[in-house]
Amino acid sequence: MVVGLVETAVPAAKSTVSSAVKKPTTLSSDPIINVARGDPTIYEPYWKKMGDRCKVVIAGDEFMSYFCNAMNLCWFLLPELDNAIRTLHRVVGNAMVDDDRFIVVGNGSTQLFHALLYALSSSNMLEPINVVAAAPFYSSYPEETKFLRSELYKWAGDANCYDKDEPYIEVVTSPNNPDGSIRGTVVNREGGKAIHDLAYYWPQYAPITSKADHDAMLFTFSKATGHAGTRIGWAIVKDKVIAAKMVKFIEVSSIGVSREAQLRAAKVLGFIADDCRNPDVKGENFFEYGRRLMSERWGKLREMGMKSNGVFSLPKYLRDYCKFTGEYTDSNPAFAWLKSREGLNCENLLRDESKIITRAGPSFGGDSTYTRVSMLSRDVEFELLLERLAAVKGTVNGN
Amino acid sequence: MVVGLVETAVPAAKSTVSSAVKKPTTLSSDPIINVARGDPTIYEPYWKKMGDRCKVVIAGDEFMSYFCNAMNLCWFLLPELDNAIRTLHRVVGNAMVDDDRFIVVGNGSTQLFHALLYALSSSNMLEPINVVAAAPFYSSYPEETKFLRSELYKWAGDANCYDKDEPYIEVVTSPNNPDGSIRGTVVNREGGKAIHDLAYYWPQYAPITSKADHDAMLFTFSKATGHAGTRIGWAIVKDKVIAAKMVKFIEVSSIGVSREAQLRAAKVLGFIADDCRNPDVKGENFFEYGRRLMSERWGKLREMGMKSNGVFSLPKYLRDYCKFTGEYTDSNPAFAWLKSREGLNCENLLRDESKIITRAGPSFGGDSTYTRVSMLSRDVEFELLLERLAAVKGTVNGN
Repeated sequence: MVVGLVETAVPAAKSTVSSAVKKPTTLSSDPIINVARGDPTIYEPYWKKMGDRCKVVIAGDEFMSYFCNAMNLCWFLLPELDNAIRTLHRVVGNAMVDDDRFIVVGNGSTQLFHALLYALSSSNMLEPINVVAAAPFYSSYPEETKFLRSELYKWAGDANCYDKDEPYIEVVTSPNNPDGSIRGTVVNREGGKAIHDLAYYWPQYAPITSKADHDAMLFTFSKATGHAGTRIGWAIVKDKVIAAKMVKFIEVSSIGVSREAQLRAAKVLGFIADDCRNPDVKGENFFEYGRRLMSERWGKLREMGMKSNGVFSLPKYLRDYCKFTGEYTDSNPAFAWLKSREGLNCENLLRDESKIITRAGPSFGGDSTYTRVSMLSRDVEFELLLERLAAVKGTVNGN
Repeated sequence: MVVGLVETAVPAAKSTVSSAVKKPTTLSSDPIINVARGDPTIYEPYWKKMGDRCKVVIAGDEFMSYFCNAMNLCWFLLPELDNAIRTLHRVVGNAMVDDDRFIVVGNGSTQLFHALLYALSSSNMLEPINVVAAAPFYSSYPEETKFLRSELYKWAGDANCYDKDEPYIEVVTSPNNPDGSIRGTVVNREGGKAIHDLAYYWPQYAPITSKADHDAMLFTFSKATGHAGTRIGWAIVKDKVIAAKMVKFIEVSSIGVSREAQLRAAKVLGFIADDCRNPDVKGENFFEYGRRLMSERWGKLREMGMKSNGVFSLPKYLRDYCKFTGEYTDSNPAFAWLKSREGLNCENLLRDESKIITRAGPSFGGDSTYTRVSMLSRDVEFELLLERLAAVKGTVNGN
């Protein structure tokens, strides 16, 4: 169990792997805890408990054609998945999915982010379109925008500082990654385009206050249900031309999306929707379960923060009325945006004093007193994280 | 059945779809036959016959983590798939897969082609690297290279005409798409880089004459076994730095590859390898089956060509000794590179006179007397294709 924990918790980096696998150790002693990535293994016990109810079986001769549904604009989208996505959004009430909206499926919402950059930029423009996001922003947006050095779009940094009189795309993540804040666009100029990344707009993370209804919205299976090994994301898009350009992007990038993964996502999303609509008197539905877990974890983390004598602090969130649960609920974000006392480098401090690997504030356009900590690890790892955090003294400066 | 045929045979283009679905018709009358894409539905009956032997079952709590194997350079590659790929190549003898070779999995070989362009180009260069392929070349290479207008690489056309004294990447497809020829690099300058696309180097399409042993080789599940809805391709790479850059590309593009699709590919490839090594006395193995089918189809197509009074001609291939089957075998390519009489536009001729949709020669860097016809359609569609081709008179000029 210890070895398993270490194996899944470490990234591909050789240094941490080799130090971690030299010999089995007890949980509380040597191993590195890696909470840099938001690997959502927290939900595993729930899906284990659901057993065969979410099992999929695929015969050897299924899904042989490139085409899922040649009649649909998104010709590689499995009709069952289209249906499950729309049904679940209607049940949860977190996004508008009227029949005139287009669903585009992707290999994770990451591929759809690329598809949207392509779809919202124009090959007729002389200069690449500017891509901005208000800091702190998801650390992968700059890299995803820059890495192929496209002449279609370019990363232009913090939306709060954007003052160019040029076309732009603003990426809005709400609830935000890394800090959990509820957000809207900040640039708001005429002709501006927006990508709304709503990966965390689900009841376990935040109150559902209204149906989101933006031009282009992204969701991902990994953060909704915890199935990160299934690379499935979806976009809900108003404009047919934009949706068609996204479909073209995914065709040229990967000729569609694996049917097996789509079938599994359809099964799981459909199961949740059914369970929410027809509650089993014996148990919680998935969102109730997730919200209870996240709420317990945030309670423990805040308690640790208060005991830390000012070494750590955490963001505060306003309660709001959640239309899904029918009560006032707290935000319980997927990440803790941990701030250390001024003068400390939070990421270095955790790494050097406690062997906790996190993602440093500057990756998100923030300062180095901040670091991002995943709240989605397995129970045993989360408890160890708390134990280690509580023991941090802040004596290692880490600068 | 007729409607099913039409649905899977048409592309996403609305015009052909709407005309095809207005009313059910008999096979030999109105419907459009679309053999523009190489949708490999030919193998469906084989996999149907194999029944439960290639079935996969996935429980609701499987594959929840982003990580498959954090110890491996390609951390999102399922170990079972790595093993099945290496085993099958050893059994078939079509590629060198010694332990020092890296396997990188992708969402189809299309994504791996993009990954290789990224990995083989350098962000330090002032000018994009030139990407070339000898005409006729796979029609998607130019678009895949150009569509994001990357400053890292650019399409530079026919390798036979390449005369720049600049860095370049040559893409070699062997057996070639569209014309089935066996190929090597043509530029051959010091410092030149190559991508070897070996999608069709399997016993049903060509004699296996030796173990391919190039720096970077691409294979795809869709053309090997016919599972095109499963977006799985793999690269066999010698250089660790190149493999690591490809892994980085796939991380930034899609954070890996769906586990469900990998599991299914592992099951099917493993099944074929087992069956080839431990032959069932009652039946053919997959490659014997595929070779018999392809050989029968090519026999019928050549017969049609001879009867066409010079309207059509087909390429000729030399027999060669196939080490896998242990006998001299013919090439039976996945596509027919059909040539019409001089002065005719082959693609227009087939479309206007026979409602057969193919991909025109110029898309492949060839001339308009050529068009590419998929040989991988379902039986009923292939028979109809032959019937229609035999009736073409060449009276519609189509220019």
